[in-house]
Amino acid sequence: MILCLPPFVRLWRDNMDSRPIGVFDSGIGGLTVVKEIMEQLPNESIVYFGDTARVPYGTKSKEAITRYSFQCIRFLLEKNVKAIVVACIIGTESTVSSGAYEKEINVINNDVKMILKACPLFVPIVEEGWQETEIAKLTAREYLEGLKKNGIDALVMACTHYPLLEKTIGEIMGEEIKLVNPAFETAKALKNVLHKLNIHSKGSKQTVYEFCVSDNPVKFKKVGENFLQNPISYVQKIDIEKY
Amino acid sequence: MILCLPPFVRLWRDNMDSRPIGVFDSGIGGLTVVKEIMEQLPNESIVYFGDTARVPYGTKSKEAITRYSFQCIRFLLEKNVKAIVVACIIGTESTVSSGAYEKEINVINNDVKMILKACPLFVPIVEEGWQETEIAKLTAREYLEGLKKNGIDALVMACTHYPLLEKTIGEIMGEEIKLVNPAFETAKALKNVLHKLNIHSKGSKQTVYEFCVSDNPVKFKKVGENFLQNPISYVQKIDIEKY
Repeated sequence: MILCLPPFVRLWRDNMDSRPIGVFDSGIGGLTVVKEIMEQLPNESIVYFGDTARVPYGTKSKEAITRYSFQCIRFLLEKNVKAIVVACIIGTESTVSSGAYEKEINVINNDVKMILKACPLFVPIVEEGWQETEIAKLTAREYLEGLKKNGIDALVMACTHYPLLEKTIGEIMGEEIKLVNPAFETAKALKNVLHKLNIHSKGSKQTVYEFCVSDNPVKFKKVGENFLQNPISYVQKIDIEKY
Repeated sequence: MILCLPPFVRLWRDNMDSRPIGVFDSGIGGLTVVKEIMEQLPNESIVYFGDTARVPYGTKSKEAITRYSFQCIRFLLEKNVKAIVVACIIGTESTVSSGAYEKEINVINNDVKMILKACPLFVPIVEEGWQETEIAKLTAREYLEGLKKNGIDALVMACTHYPLLEKTIGEIMGEEIKLVNPAFETAKALKNVLHKLNIHSKGSKQTVYEFCVSDNPVKFKKVGENFLQNPISYVQKIDIEKY
């Protein structure tokens, strides 16, 4: 989900909207979206907030998730962001069992048949940085070989963590099955909307990437570098309950 | 942790204290303790409560965990239990990072050196029922080979889920390294305390095993049978917030 914040007062020239993009997630997984934004929108600065003190959101009540999300949004607004990307606020198993994907896709095309498959080992495999090990390959085969035999046309990697397993998953599924990477699609949608509103950064000014969490910045830095496939210089711990 | 409830009024004969043992856990893991109680105390009936609606407790505040625990205890008291076993109320990573083990053990013997190792893939491997697969073996080797090289004498499988991996872990560690199974030790301590208070069941009356959860009884039944290595005939869903 992308929320856009066109400037109320146009104080900068058209090619100077250097306000950052805000991205938040219940934890670390949203960094796959950050990686795609870095690649597709290299002129944009980014502020990331990972609510690591309260992860996972998936098991919390609706009221709690709403309150947490507003706190994340208020924090990012203080950072003067021009758009906010909600990377993921529900856990893998919740996503699958809610039937949300089926409902949304059937609104567009009622002929689409969906097979849903929760893959709980994928998240800890990615967080350990084991995505190209024999363990990852055997696990992906165990989860996905049945889907392949079912003759599916496309596979949506429907959790922020899964795109890191794209290579391993691709090897099992083969070239005929299209892999859909939601992190890539989110960054593409963001690019479209920034251009439509003419608030994309056209300058070549140095971009700034800022990473904030509500707990355990040391672990976030270590695991996050694996997600970004880039070094993270500093992770700031903030008190999200204040927002 | 074991709480005992000697009878206020001794309405039954000494060999007839057939009140059940209550066991609770934030989820399904406490079933490893149930399995050990079934084996070591075959005359005792058991009521198990798994708080699957609010799992994991590890990421919750102290106040929340206290409130949840009292609700679990009130539910079990209504079942007229004679003892309550708190199987586990903290997550693997919290257990390790809290330093609780080190502190407690050093009170007994200051010479004991401890190496702590979080093994986050073990829980989903057990929940998938994959404990004797190649995936489990490779994962255990990845986590534990370093500990073996460090020359440790004993390995405490310090999470309710881990005893299911005992065979796989034992193969890697070899016979010289003693594996400590906290589920076994808890059942042993329970047996001791029941005998000391003379409230153990001496009768040969049919034992009753009752399983209750706060959410998803179908999944609990399926995964639980893997934990118990025995069939579960029925799982009841209860509203724990009422207690």
